Amino acid sequence: MTPVVRKVLVTGSGGLIAGALVRDLADRYDFTGQDIARPSHPTVPTTVGDLSNMEDVRRALDGMDAVVHLGADSRQDAPWSSVLPNNLVATRNVFDACRDAGIKRVVFASSNHAVGMHELDDPYSRIRVGDYEGLDPDNVPQIDHTVQIRPDGHYGVSKAYGEATGAYYAENFGLEVACLRIGTVNRANRPMDIRQLATWCSHRDIVQLIRLCLDHEPLRFDIFYGVSNNKWRFWDIDHARDVLGYAPQDNAEDYRDSI
Amino acid sequence: MTPVVRKVLVTGSGGLIAGALVRDLADRYDFTGQDIARPSHPTVPTTVGDLSNMEDVRRALDGMDAVVHLGADSRQDAPWSSVLPNNLVATRNVFDACRDAGIKRVVFASSNHAVGMHELDDPYSRIRVGDYEGLDPDNVPQIDHTVQIRPDGHYGVSKAYGEATGAYYAENFGLEVACLRIGTVNRANRPMDIRQLATWCSHRDIVQLIRLCLDHEPLRFDIFYGVSNNKWRFWDIDHARDVLGYAPQDNAEDYRDSI
Repeated sequence: MTPVVRKVLVTGSGGLIAGALVRDLADRYDFTGQDIARPSHPTVPTTVGDLSNMEDVRRALDGMDAVVHLGADSRQDAPWSSVLPNNLVATRNVFDACRDAGIKRVVFASSNHAVGMHELDDPYSRIRVGDYEGLDPDNVPQIDHTVQIRPDGHYGVSKAYGEATGAYYAENFGLEVACLRIGTVNRANRPMDIRQLATWCSHRDIVQLIRLCLDHEPLRFDIFYGVSNNKWRFWDIDHARDVLGYAPQDNAEDYRDSI
Repeated sequence: MTPVVRKVLVTGSGGLIAGALVRDLADRYDFTGQDIARPSHPTVPTTVGDLSNMEDVRRALDGMDAVVHLGADSRQDAPWSSVLPNNLVATRNVFDACRDAGIKRVVFASSNHAVGMHELDDPYSRIRVGDYEGLDPDNVPQIDHTVQIRPDGHYGVSKAYGEATGAYYAENFGLEVACLRIGTVNRANRPMDIRQLATWCSHRDIVQLIRLCLDHEPLRFDIFYGVSNNKWRFWDIDHARDVLGYAPQDNAEDYRDSI
């Protein structure tokens, strides 16, 4: 089946997830990149611009069917002075310009940090340090897309803000919006510590999830967690499985002996 | 009992709710006002300043125990160009400066518009236009503090953002934060149309709720709806009743014949 969306802008295209995405799905979509700096080794045509500047956003969006909005200051402890332009203003600009340009769909890189404080509650606080005593991994209550917003930093607040903005544009202007509360995606592409045995998301699993969010019909607004099928995960994947057919291929547990 | 907080800064002190608050509770708190413009008839000492300017915020906070943060562009359809400085930046500044200044508690004026799109779902969509057929007012499922964020404008998004910011400062820095999703508070102090038979909040009821949020112990972070005990209300007050002892005195239904 031909995908409904073909021409896809990837913001923050110099980043890790963008790199995996355009590499793995080059045959499926016609990707264009956008980044604040000119890439040294671009793998896709790239528009250089600042997403906090609306004219730069409009220019990057020209002719696109969909946007995967990954561009942001992605540091969990990013200072407000950077979060304000790069996450808050930029994300509002992307959604607003997408509406104006008649873009069909936006996949927004939210983050588990929008709800990061849940992780300090029992039993998650124990799982993240490997204290599994008395816990059954098949019966850990999952943190899902309906939990209360509990950010752990300005970065997390900005992601909650992006979700709220996406909901507004979806419900009021018909933009289709999928928000991904992405877990731990790293360069090594394997869990690096005890916490990541719960929170890891492999490159191929996040790429699969983004692909499903681009192609799945119908979709209006929804929130999914980007996490692999880890034995000790505490973020829900049932909702992504039920709505999108997400079928993650990786499990951090397979790497336990190597962390 | 002596209130725990005594010196209270009211931001946006030129506004309607602030006026009712400082009038009704003048004996209970030592109020100081803050507004962007010099008031023509100030009823409390007032600091003039711009909340999007951190230095102005710090100056206004000097010596305070608590803040009732009402200052914002309060138009439901406020444009982004105003929401950005007056609601987003200002609210972050207030929370951040409160942490730095060791302020005990913040009562944040959120809004029903943070979750305004729920109102277009059945049965709320019928209640707001007076189509009560088949509905029992005592059994309308209430929109409560746990529903999903569904803003109906940039204003509503900014209020969801303020709640997320409040949660962050409460959980990470010990600031005590109450967010009020305020309904319809108007100058006439009575419901003016069919929708307001559901959404009205009288002056004395919102003043009571703010007082409870300033005084109640313990409080860490919570969200309450600011609405009178209206026959056809669809926003939950049980949570405010259970946590704070909120006992609204007014019911919009008493004014039905006069709208």
